[in-house]
Amino acid sequence: MNSINNVFHLIKTCPDSKARAGELITPHGIVPTPVFLPVASQGSIKTLTPDEVKDVGIAMVLANTYRLYLRPGVSTVAKMGGLHRFMDWDRAILTDSGGYQIFSLAPLRRVNDEGVIFRSHIDGSEHLITPELAIQFQETLGADIIMVLDECPAYDDSFEKVRGAMNRTHQWAERCQRAQKSAAQALYAIVQGGVFPQLRRQSAEYLTSLEFPGYAIGGLSIGESKKVTFAMVEETVALLPENKPRYLMGVGSPEDLLNGIARGVDIFDSALPTRIARNGALFTRIGRVNIRNAAYSQVEQPVDADCDCYTCRTFSAAYLHHLFDCQELLAYRLATIHNLAFVSRLMHKMRGAILDGTFGSFKDEFLTSYQPTDEQVRLDQKHKWLKSRGLNQ
Amino acid sequence: MNSINNVFHLIKTCPDSKARAGELITPHGIVPTPVFLPVASQGSIKTLTPDEVKDVGIAMVLANTYRLYLRPGVSTVAKMGGLHRFMDWDRAILTDSGGYQIFSLAPLRRVNDEGVIFRSHIDGSEHLITPELAIQFQETLGADIIMVLDECPAYDDSFEKVRGAMNRTHQWAERCQRAQKSAAQALYAIVQGGVFPQLRRQSAEYLTSLEFPGYAIGGLSIGESKKVTFAMVEETVALLPENKPRYLMGVGSPEDLLNGIARGVDIFDSALPTRIARNGALFTRIGRVNIRNAAYSQVEQPVDADCDCYTCRTFSAAYLHHLFDCQELLAYRLATIHNLAFVSRLMHKMRGAILDGTFGSFKDEFLTSYQPTDEQVRLDQKHKWLKSRGLNQ
Repeated sequence: MNSINNVFHLIKTCPDSKARAGELITPHGIVPTPVFLPVASQGSIKTLTPDEVKDVGIAMVLANTYRLYLRPGVSTVAKMGGLHRFMDWDRAILTDSGGYQIFSLAPLRRVNDEGVIFRSHIDGSEHLITPELAIQFQETLGADIIMVLDECPAYDDSFEKVRGAMNRTHQWAERCQRAQKSAAQALYAIVQGGVFPQLRRQSAEYLTSLEFPGYAIGGLSIGESKKVTFAMVEETVALLPENKPRYLMGVGSPEDLLNGIARGVDIFDSALPTRIARNGALFTRIGRVNIRNAAYSQVEQPVDADCDCYTCRTFSAAYLHHLFDCQELLAYRLATIHNLAFVSRLMHKMRGAILDGTFGSFKDEFLTSYQPTDEQVRLDQKHKWLKSRGLNQ
Repeated sequence: MNSINNVFHLIKTCPDSKARAGELITPHGIVPTPVFLPVASQGSIKTLTPDEVKDVGIAMVLANTYRLYLRPGVSTVAKMGGLHRFMDWDRAILTDSGGYQIFSLAPLRRVNDEGVIFRSHIDGSEHLITPELAIQFQETLGADIIMVLDECPAYDDSFEKVRGAMNRTHQWAERCQRAQKSAAQALYAIVQGGVFPQLRRQSAEYLTSLEFPGYAIGGLSIGESKKVTFAMVEETVALLPENKPRYLMGVGSPEDLLNGIARGVDIFDSALPTRIARNGALFTRIGRVNIRNAAYSQVEQPVDADCDCYTCRTFSAAYLHHLFDCQELLAYRLATIHNLAFVSRLMHKMRGAILDGTFGSFKDEFLTSYQPTDEQVRLDQKHKWLKSRGLNQ
């Protein structure tokens, strides 16, 4: 479906990389790209009011269809005037289809060509979701961008298994396209294919032939190494149409955003900046620091002297350390504000650099001072988190 | 010690009751009385930024010397420019002496005439606090109003035990007075005497003879019935000087504020409005309601249609219910904002009624529609909470 809304304008491409600046025209405003979407899984960016999310410069958020379907229920959200009104967010929203959550959160799932039967991770009740229902739910929630239902294999599944999931994802993408009733939403396809270049290419080519208004790259950043992640991004982006937005799902560390943008990605989402904030990990010019570290207990300066967010404008690192030390709920808010402000500002700067033709030097400069999280530490954290999730995001 | 700061002006007394309107002149602004102080035990009104606390009309907060002494330490707060700057609160602050916390929170305490030796409830380390140290700590924190160190018996202790604690409190009050070095703080005495009218009278008379700039009524609202609480308030207030502020410690439900004001109290503090908010209990015109109740899941109106707070202006009761249902951290903020706005507005209205000479009818009208929490339920909750505290406030 087409509409005057949900059009993507490509404004400029970097001469030295595949980085691009553009804008998405949505029913809830223009979203400059590249753009980062924080995660409002259950209709709330954890700890923040919508006003605070706007204040740090966020233009679009992601909400989880699986979560909202289970609680409070899609019909309740509709009764309250739709998701924008329910959560008091008047800017753009993207909803995922629920596929990823069902495959990673819900126990006892049975998948066949028809759809997925799963049990709620909350009360064990049994539910069926089909491509048609995924679209119906998302249209009812009323997001600006919605996603096809996909089958998400694990990062270490076999070639055969991943190929099967990919083929099913393709069939489901077609059914989702046919099921769409409203022109108010832009429906994006999701390229699958795991860590197999051949499957990634096949998936990108097949889905491109169906002419979706946007393409996501799914099934990455779920436990594989970063080298593999970005090799798959390159394989996929090379086959996606120039004039359509590309969305790398589940990516959100500063260094990954930079690397994704350099490879031609326009849209990102991740719970990482907000989740690690609640653990005391804060982004700074030199990398992540942990405010729980005793060294901060006597620091009168803000945690990040370069930052103009409310937290850094108002409080000493010592106060923030104290709040974390005492498990005061304000701690999680102040850290979340800072991390989102950091990522939002970084996206804004990168877009500016692309428009100025200086993205290459910006990237080099950033990576000179910013110390990315150690790859092994990161993978260990990710695996630990994947095991424990369902409790948190 | 006297200063041009920290003076109390009595403006008007209600013709039908002992209710009075006045103002406290503090180094951080004029505080209209009667006034309610929410509790920032550890230098933060739980879940809120200082801006939000101001937005709901709060003029003064209470911070705990015991808590701040243990974490982050009095010297750290001093190094960060004092408590006002540390927590970014530029309005008035009252600090308690730590007495109540030591007697209710700390394990293994030994009290003698010199002071109290106690173990930290956090790490078990041993500490001594004396009246002189209590004053030194509070002067270092830099609050506007500070409190004498008192010995706090339990609500069901014997006459002998309560009398002993009262006598020691009197000796300590004199030592606190002598220890005071700065004129920037007003030092208030604390009347003790438990539930024994004879001791309450003796304590009020003795402390009044020492001429403090303000008098607190301590050792109430700690497990005894409300009838007893207010009988003791009446006994005490009758013997306190007209031109000095009276502060009823630990009281903060809407009906108790009303009853305390009617008996001539000017200052109140309590963790109740913020603590019960985090459990989903919200004040409304008709009494406390619990937003967790399933009936709210489909209510599009705000939880309190009469309220102009951010929460009620912005969100449906259904959204608030959903956030509590999902344990989203935003829930606790939105509920806290509402309860503080409710109490703050109630105080403002009562002061207006006293000034207008209509307090009597205001009180009758309020109590006609507002259903106070059942006495037995309240006492059970209080006893349960007293057992569990140390974990929360």
